[in-house]
Amino acid sequence: MILTVKKDCDRNELQRLMNQLEKKGLELNFSEGANYIVLGLVGDTTALDVDWLKSFTCVKEVTRVQAPYKKANRLFHPEDSIIDVSGIKVGGHEKIVVIGGPCSVEGEQIICDIAQEVKDAGGVMLRGGAYKPRTSPYAFQGMGTEGILAMVKAREKTGLPIVSELMSADKIDEFVEHVDLIQVGARNMQNFDLLKALGKVDKPVLLKRGLANTIEEWIMAAEYIMAGGNKNVILCERGIRTFEKYTRNTLDLSVVPIIKERTHLPIIIDPSHATGDWKLVEAMSLAAIAAGADGLIIEVHSCPECAWSDGAQSLKPAKFASLIEKGRAIAQVIGREL
Amino acid sequence: MILTVKKDCDRNELQRLMNQLEKKGLELNFSEGANYIVLGLVGDTTALDVDWLKSFTCVKEVTRVQAPYKKANRLFHPEDSIIDVSGIKVGGHEKIVVIGGPCSVEGEQIICDIAQEVKDAGGVMLRGGAYKPRTSPYAFQGMGTEGILAMVKAREKTGLPIVSELMSADKIDEFVEHVDLIQVGARNMQNFDLLKALGKVDKPVLLKRGLANTIEEWIMAAEYIMAGGNKNVILCERGIRTFEKYTRNTLDLSVVPIIKERTHLPIIIDPSHATGDWKLVEAMSLAAIAAGADGLIIEVHSCPECAWSDGAQSLKPAKFASLIEKGRAIAQVIGREL
Amino acid sequence: MILTVKKDCDRNELQRLMNQLEKKGLELNFSEGANYIVLGLVGDTTALDVDWLKSFTCVKEVTRVQAPYKKANRLFHPEDSIIDVSGIKVGGHEKIVVIGGPCSVEGEQIICDIAQEVKDAGGVMLRGGAYKPRTSPYAFQGMGTEGILAMVKAREKTGLPIVSELMSADKIDEFVEHVDLIQVGARNMQNFDLLKALGKVDKPVLLKRGLANTIEEWIMAAEYIMAGGNKNVILCERGIRTFEKYTRNTLDLSVVPIIKERTHLPIIIDPSHATGDWKLVEAMSLAAIAAGADGLIIEVHSCPECAWSDGAQSLKPAKFASLIEKGRAIAQVIGREL
Amino acid sequence: MILTVKKDCDRNELQRLMNQLEKKGLELNFSEGANYIVLGLVGDTTALDVDWLKSFTCVKEVTRVQAPYKKANRLFHPEDSIIDVSGIKVGGHEKIVVIGGPCSVEGEQIICDIAQEVKDAGGVMLRGGAYKPRTSPYAFQGMGTEGILAMVKAREKTGLPIVSELMSADKIDEFVEHVDLIQVGARNMQNFDLLKALGKVDKPVLLKRGLANTIEEWIMAAEYIMAGGNKNVILCERGIRTFEKYTRNTLDLSVVPIIKERTHLPIIIDPSHATGDWKLVEAMSLAAIAAGADGLIIEVHSCPECAWSDGAQSLKPAKFASLIEKGRAIAQVIGREL
Repeated sequence: MILTVKKDCDRNELQRLMNQLEKKGLELNFSEGANYIVLGLVGDTTALDVDWLKSFTCVKEVTRVQAPYKKANRLFHPEDSIIDVSGIKVGGHEKIVVIGGPCSVEGEQIICDIAQEVKDAGGVMLRGGAYKPRTSPYAFQGMGTEGILAMVKAREKTGLPIVSELMSADKIDEFVEHVDLIQVGARNMQNFDLLKALGKVDKPVLLKRGLANTIEEWIMAAEYIMAGGNKNVILCERGIRTFEKYTRNTLDLSVVPIIKERTHLPIIIDPSHATGDWKLVEAMSLAAIAAGADGLIIEVHSCPECAWSDGAQSLKPAKFASLIEKGRAIAQVIGREL
Repeated sequence: MILTVKKDCDRNELQRLMNQLEKKGLELNFSEGANYIVLGLVGDTTALDVDWLKSFTCVKEVTRVQAPYKKANRLFHPEDSIIDVSGIKVGGHEKIVVIGGPCSVEGEQIICDIAQEVKDAGGVMLRGGAYKPRTSPYAFQGMGTEGILAMVKAREKTGLPIVSELMSADKIDEFVEHVDLIQVGARNMQNFDLLKALGKVDKPVLLKRGLANTIEEWIMAAEYIMAGGNKNVILCERGIRTFEKYTRNTLDLSVVPIIKERTHLPIIIDPSHATGDWKLVEAMSLAAIAAGADGLIIEVHSCPECAWSDGAQSLKPAKFASLIEKGRAIAQVIGREL
Repeated sequence: MILTVKKDCDRNELQRLMNQLEKKGLELNFSEGANYIVLGLVGDTTALDVDWLKSFTCVKEVTRVQAPYKKANRLFHPEDSIIDVSGIKVGGHEKIVVIGGPCSVEGEQIICDIAQEVKDAGGVMLRGGAYKPRTSPYAFQGMGTEGILAMVKAREKTGLPIVSELMSADKIDEFVEHVDLIQVGARNMQNFDLLKALGKVDKPVLLKRGLANTIEEWIMAAEYIMAGGNKNVILCERGIRTFEKYTRNTLDLSVVPIIKERTHLPIIIDPSHATGDWKLVEAMSLAAIAAGADGLIIEVHSCPECAWSDGAQSLKPAKFASLIEKGRAIAQVIGREL
Repeated sequence: MILTVKKDCDRNELQRLMNQLEKKGLELNFSEGANYIVLGLVGDTTALDVDWLKSFTCVKEVTRVQAPYKKANRLFHPEDSIIDVSGIKVGGHEKIVVIGGPCSVEGEQIICDIAQEVKDAGGVMLRGGAYKPRTSPYAFQGMGTEGILAMVKAREKTGLPIVSELMSADKIDEFVEHVDLIQVGARNMQNFDLLKALGKVDKPVLLKRGLANTIEEWIMAAEYIMAGGNKNVILCERGIRTFEKYTRNTLDLSVVPIIKERTHLPIIIDPSHATGDWKLVEAMSLAAIAAGADGLIIEVHSCPECAWSDGAQSLKPAKFASLIEKGRAIAQVIGREL
């Protein structure tokens, strides 16, 4: 870490700061320029609080050299992490995974039917929301436990591992028991109590990027889970919030090479929530594969206009199947399988 | 609500949609133009799901006429709500309230000392974080219960009601017992399980706007709490995330007249988190009062560089006192007291 | 267009508004609901000013049904436009074009050398800036006319058509004479005088999206050129400004299917400026092709660290060649050639 | 400036970089840490190109210590600049100026009438657009020269200096001859050819912040004008683009203290374009004065719904007069006059 210090500062305050940094075990590198003093801090600065440093009036600027994350950092873990979701491997040079299913679970029969269609099309996991984060308190909030059990039934019938969103730590036991991959939604990406709870279990976690979170904050959210002891984190980009109005969110595909450079974690893409429009899903899915993503999570519904939520972004099974077929060809070009 | 329908659409699908809307008790107003059909929906559309409507391929556009919130809507509650926080009235034409205190509670003695300084300066409530949402798992996470009890002690000594952030529903009993005004932080603004839990108690809630949430989503978060039965919501703007780098966030003061026009709830401003820089706090505080805000929540610390978090944005007590004095004069100009 | 009108409005004002709309040749469709009046306007509303409508106090909301663009609108021009750039066809089902070259022209010899390398790698046009929009007045501002003439020489040697940025209408003659494809940079996307000047010539224009412009504003900028009489517009996405810090801009690839749905114009992608980092260029280029883009414009320099500007985002020729090879394979998958 | 260099880099490349930096007259401060080398550059780095530095593969990060602007920098010009606009002084401790007038000039009679009303209300300058930047080519583009001459007539009648927007350098002579304060609009903030042309005249310039430009880029735009020799720059904040939909733009009032800290230039606020809604103008105007702004520029029209553009954001004269009266009282509180 590098501190830029004002030359005309209170030297006593500066000395106090330097003493405190040395007490934290950091080596200091002092060099005085024409207008500023530059203070290099050598040692582990991961836990050093930038805001605390800035509260010293002598400090003008603080520059991080080391990333603030350790467990997720590729620097200290050069090989790709491969996350095992009940037998399906995600990441590394494993097959690209495609997860399909409805936004909300709406009943046992329908989720079983969709699961079969997802499987027939080439999908390897089933998604479905039982607890739904809805902007309006008057909107359908999900079937809850009944929905989870309907998914379990669909898994029994098709063999597909199931993915569902956990909204609150008090339901974690239910999810650990029944769900194969526990999703943290965008709105809860910085629900730190939830992240801490997930750090204590060993189920794989699908961590969606928050609507307005930087890549660094997203990796730090993964770090929360990993620091707690759970190494099984898969990152999922689902679009960020911008000024653009023709799409619901702006899908940021550049995260794919960035996540792969900076972390060792798998990264998958959710084109359905990113765009909010089924007509854009195929193009964005193929782009994600070409960019090097480890997987896709796509909304599929046999009757989008019958869906209880987010029908506008759901693909019909035939469209989903043809998307997978094209994706397979693109995967081959970049040396992967799907 | 108005639906714009493609003229060359599948008329059977359109008929199906219209039947379903009529079954929901809505009256339909059909008018066919040169290129489009316009369908006006008359009745209570609050709970109608825009995405469900968009999933019909015949629907091109959906336009809300009525706001999606009811309980918070000034239309149905023309007079200002005044929230009573243990005797301090917030909103309406009541006195403008100034809340002061440190980012984190750091010990009983120091919080009591700061509380006294806040009171001497003219502050009427004490803020202090006992559970801290921190981007890094390696940063100080707050003193927890011990911190809450230290604040209780500070209240005993000074009589100031206390404000603290609740991060998880499982601590709600502790907060209801000890805290006068329960804060929901920006990162939890759409933690819907937390909002629902707060709807079931009757403590006042200070609801911060999320980093990237629209005003409408923010009001909908208030609506969650109010729909559950708790009418005591105070809104708090604390800056939104933009591309600008000279400030931590961009303080959006236009929310003040907007919130007052659309809702009957009080609105207060947090200039400390918005700017991240104590040097900007006074100017933004005076601006907030001039804009018509019902209060301010400001970080105050007797020794910002000793603070365990966010020292960079904390005011020293003397500066806080002089800010209040200036704010009082501005309040008078716009016909309020402070 | 649909106007939502307050029911308790001044009916005289409403009548005045309706009279004025009828005088503009619009047919009005009046329907009175429980809380609002809905006024449908039938006819050509392209030139109707939303802000003028909103200035009537009776008007609560204005909703566009028809897009505000005509010439660029696919609705009125269903087949793809194919733009001919000195023999290179762009758009439709034509070959995907790859444009390569340095950020700035730095001399005749070096631009000729790079042009040859671009051609050898499979590039079909040469880019190079002679007039440079630089944030700092102290930074290199481009070689000007000398740079244009150096590019002309490179074209003579290699046969590659040349692309360069025009910053001001007063240089338009120079560009029409020498340049094959005139670029409008992101910062000038809404320099309307420049757009109008380009509407009067018949050279193809490469119109970059502004840093914070919506897709609709971007299409409207194309409409300016087309309304003036020049139909030869190619759109170019180069990233938008968001809060993210790990990339210079956020590349918005969803524009590809959106532009193709709403307009008949070709769309190409600039991954170099979007990311600002050469390490991300290949992944984003392949993604762009998979998404259906009609071309790429990529910074190439034989010695990035010798470049006078933007070296950080330039590819070396060998990397550029390998990118094209992979892109070719992906193009085949989606039924295109490169 | 500080370079963070990878420890395992190619030392030859690093040596080449260091040689080039020394040739530019910079002194180098080399310090080797555990994981990184830190290279401090001492000397004038204003013109050093960050992207050029990043193009060296050994360079990991570049941190500016000195701001990239000199002429606008308060560091080198501690006293406030006071800009004289035909006798009206702007900045420093001079009176707060209020500029009023219509969005577009619509005729001689009406601009003269509005000018008189602006003056009667307490406004000291008249604004009015003769050349209009409009998103649509089909919208009214302004009266051009005729509009400028109508404003000249209004100045003759009322004595108010006039402000109007220049969109293209080829009209600069007309503006220098007739206009007292030349406005650069938000969309042209980085039209560098226009900025350069304005640097060569000595008329005061009102430089609006771009829709998505950082404060630093905005100051750099002022630096362009000042580097050319014209020191008479007044900055004007008019809202930035964010995800929020209830306002047209988000007014960023924190620029007021920031601009005053970093530059010596006056800063005025445009609440009309920022909000797009006349109902919000008064609250934001009072807030701007409380924050320390040197002036306001407000849209005023005697008949907003008759206005040819932007009527939705225009105040009627009576409302404008009452705003000025309240503003005057707030100015007194902070020790200024209006």
